[in-house]
Amino acid sequence: MSEKQIPYKIYLEESEMPKQWYNVRADMKNKPAPLLNPATLEPMTAQELGAVFCDELVQQELNDTDRFIDIPQEIQNFYRMYRPAPLVRAYCLEKKLGTPAKIYYKFEGNNTSGSHKLNSAIAQAYYAKKQGLKGVTTETGAGQWGTALSMACSYFDLDCKVFMVKVSYEQKPFRREVMRTYGASVTPSPSTTTEVGKKILAEHPGTTGSLGCAISEAVEVAVSTEGYRYVLGSVLNQVLLHQSIIGMETKIALDKYGIKPDIIIGCAGGGSNLGGLISPFMGEKLRGEADYQIIAVEPASCPSLTRGKFAYDFCDTGKVCPLAKMYTLGSGFIPSANHAGGLRYHGMSSTLSQLYDDGFMEARSVEQTAVFEAAQQFARIEGILPAPESSHAIKVAIDEALKCKETGEEKTIVFGLTGTGYFDMVAYQKFNDGVMMDYIPTDEDLKPGFDSLPNVNK
Amino acid sequence: MSEKQIPYKIYLEESEMPKQWYNVRADMKNKPAPLLNPATLEPMTAQELGAVFCDELVQQELNDTDRFIDIPQEIQNFYRMYRPAPLVRAYCLEKKLGTPAKIYYKFEGNNTSGSHKLNSAIAQAYYAKKQGLKGVTTETGAGQWGTALSMACSYFDLDCKVFMVKVSYEQKPFRREVMRTYGASVTPSPSTTTEVGKKILAEHPGTTGSLGCAISEAVEVAVSTEGYRYVLGSVLNQVLLHQSIIGMETKIALDKYGIKPDIIIGCAGGGSNLGGLISPFMGEKLRGEADYQIIAVEPASCPSLTRGKFAYDFCDTGKVCPLAKMYTLGSGFIPSANHAGGLRYHGMSSTLSQLYDDGFMEARSVEQTAVFEAAQQFARIEGILPAPESSHAIKVAIDEALKCKETGEEKTIVFGLTGTGYFDMVAYQKFNDGVMMDYIPTDEDLKPGFDSLPNVNK
Repeated sequence: MSEKQIPYKIYLEESEMPKQWYNVRADMKNKPAPLLNPATLEPMTAQELGAVFCDELVQQELNDTDRFIDIPQEIQNFYRMYRPAPLVRAYCLEKKLGTPAKIYYKFEGNNTSGSHKLNSAIAQAYYAKKQGLKGVTTETGAGQWGTALSMACSYFDLDCKVFMVKVSYEQKPFRREVMRTYGASVTPSPSTTTEVGKKILAEHPGTTGSLGCAISEAVEVAVSTEGYRYVLGSVLNQVLLHQSIIGMETKIALDKYGIKPDIIIGCAGGGSNLGGLISPFMGEKLRGEADYQIIAVEPASCPSLTRGKFAYDFCDTGKVCPLAKMYTLGSGFIPSANHAGGLRYHGMSSTLSQLYDDGFMEARSVEQTAVFEAAQQFARIEGILPAPESSHAIKVAIDEALKCKETGEEKTIVFGLTGTGYFDMVAYQKFNDGVMMDYIPTDEDLKPGFDSLPNVNK
Repeated sequence: MSEKQIPYKIYLEESEMPKQWYNVRADMKNKPAPLLNPATLEPMTAQELGAVFCDELVQQELNDTDRFIDIPQEIQNFYRMYRPAPLVRAYCLEKKLGTPAKIYYKFEGNNTSGSHKLNSAIAQAYYAKKQGLKGVTTETGAGQWGTALSMACSYFDLDCKVFMVKVSYEQKPFRREVMRTYGASVTPSPSTTTEVGKKILAEHPGTTGSLGCAISEAVEVAVSTEGYRYVLGSVLNQVLLHQSIIGMETKIALDKYGIKPDIIIGCAGGGSNLGGLISPFMGEKLRGEADYQIIAVEPASCPSLTRGKFAYDFCDTGKVCPLAKMYTLGSGFIPSANHAGGLRYHGMSSTLSQLYDDGFMEARSVEQTAVFEAAQQFARIEGILPAPESSHAIKVAIDEALKCKETGEEKTIVFGLTGTGYFDMVAYQKFNDGVMMDYIPTDEDLKPGFDSLPNVNK
């Protein structure tokens, strides 16, 4: 490692910021499996996908050969409003832990949406605008994606219709108000405004909703409304492409100071942050140029990588979306009601699933009280109140740093701090009050989800 | 102006960050009037003040001669965790307004407390720790100060007792939980835990509290508990001293690019942000080295500068604190219940009051629906969701930029964006729902406040 003094925070100059996204699929020998048409079980064509998604995003979704894709100037301009995100050396945390490890985190919470989601939201809004659309539809759970998309649509003067999982809509009224402040309409899901919503309400009266259900509603509105398309904040290849900005900035910042990480850690729900953070490092690994220990961290209560099956599955409850091959708990899986944070999607990005299946990364599941202990410790020491999602990565970063303390190894650990927890204080309150519970599903609990997997796998 | 390309955000290098605070009082010919002992009406001595405040802070409070005061290394270290704050060129806002004006804002919301308050909180906690104290007490209204102090105390392992205005305690449970996450105890005020609280509750059953009342409770606990002192987040000279870091960073960033501002705008409640932002510019003005138009912006519903009297007044409801000479509406003044944001203190920093009285700055009052219109516009264009307090400055910055549009003048406007609005979504919701009301007190409404001024003025 260079002797150059490492500042607390490394900010890139505007001239150093990436001008291209990196497409990790170009370096994968085993490409992620294609999306399938649920009716024909044939790979979705660009034309079929174009009914749901913006045209240029469809091209990005299907492009597994171009290593780099130019970031349009308008998106670069927007990025400059809140990027570069700082790469922070966690000097205070290192000291408190008494570890010889060097800990860095890439902090993506420095924008009003409070998370990394804005990186893809602005790209998707841009392409929608460029296509001359009137607006977009989407779903949101914890609310980070909906907030980010609202901001992006406001910037490009696009209409934005958000279906928000009902339980979040009710428990997070402030999230809703942020979206409204940015001019979005927010509908609790399931709603009576869509056919699929009505159907789900009839089958499950009193349901508080799920991401899979909100996706179905958003897609229905997109395909049935002139001038609208559907956009999604995770799971898809295009999202990982846009989020590669996280990893590329991180790598440029590390390279600038001659730092080579040993371990890279990210939380994993649908994979947007993890896929973005690790992408350039994974690229080096795939090309045999370098080796890194890459760790995906997921909640023990929604363990798609560590306990899921690698199979084709429905992406949504209403089964209106294409099938994706991924590590999945089955679209019928619903996380325990006591699960506090995000990271509650039943499946995982096809790209990350393939990389995991091929042994290029590992996965760990952690329980939520341990996650909030790590969150509280981090907040008190590093001064940032982390989102529960991000705190999964913090927990494993601390674990690894403490291992270094035992062995004396001076490993360099990099983790993704995806966002802030300002809208998650109900969960923090549970933790502060000592009433937060852990929940690890039994094999029996997982069975209904696996039973819901489509026949194509059989 | 230099031809050098101005980036969206100017971040100082760590080596460029100020190592000293600037004490504007050293350059004032008319010094701010001293605090008076309410019993003797004599200026408070260091010894008397030492019963309430930490010793070193008392020295800073009384020091009106040293132009610069070293920032202790431990505080510099903490500053590096969240500073420098970016100076942002509002390119997008300029374009949207179609103004030839150049608009910059110093953004102080990039830390978990969400505001500039942390700049003084960490200093006050440091001096308390250095003195060997067990803990500190304080009050908080909207909650920014209490949050900042909780973070600072957590860092130095000090106990922190916060009296939170009851109406905020109930309406902002998330603020409370952030403070608890940082280990602070939070008591709704008025409470039955203090004599003054019991007295106020007996006199005004059902009161929802006020800052002045919470101050009285916090001071009582500090002076009656071994190893505790009271700390305050605004109004005091020491606070303006610590907050000078805002203005100094701003000036260094502007100088780096050869930019000379014409207008400097800050919101004003007790004066912590405004006093900090303007300090080095005011210093130049006081020394006759440069001229700037400096504008304090306050709510029309709590107009201490624009409609208050320049007089000695009680700082708190319980009248346990020293008297301060300031522009004030009287300690008996209570802002209308429909006033949404902070900036609700009845008085204004003695230093700023003197500078205003001497004609070195001007003041404007703005109504809250206009403030939220500016906030929403700013959020949509610049991507940051501003605190209602900060939005007062945004409103006047936009007004000034639009004046430039009419006249064609290319003025350079700098304003302070003190914090984020994540915990103010109830107010945003009122605005989004179209039910926010304006309120300008009549002269009759102001009378009870003025009647409560102490006899010393007569």
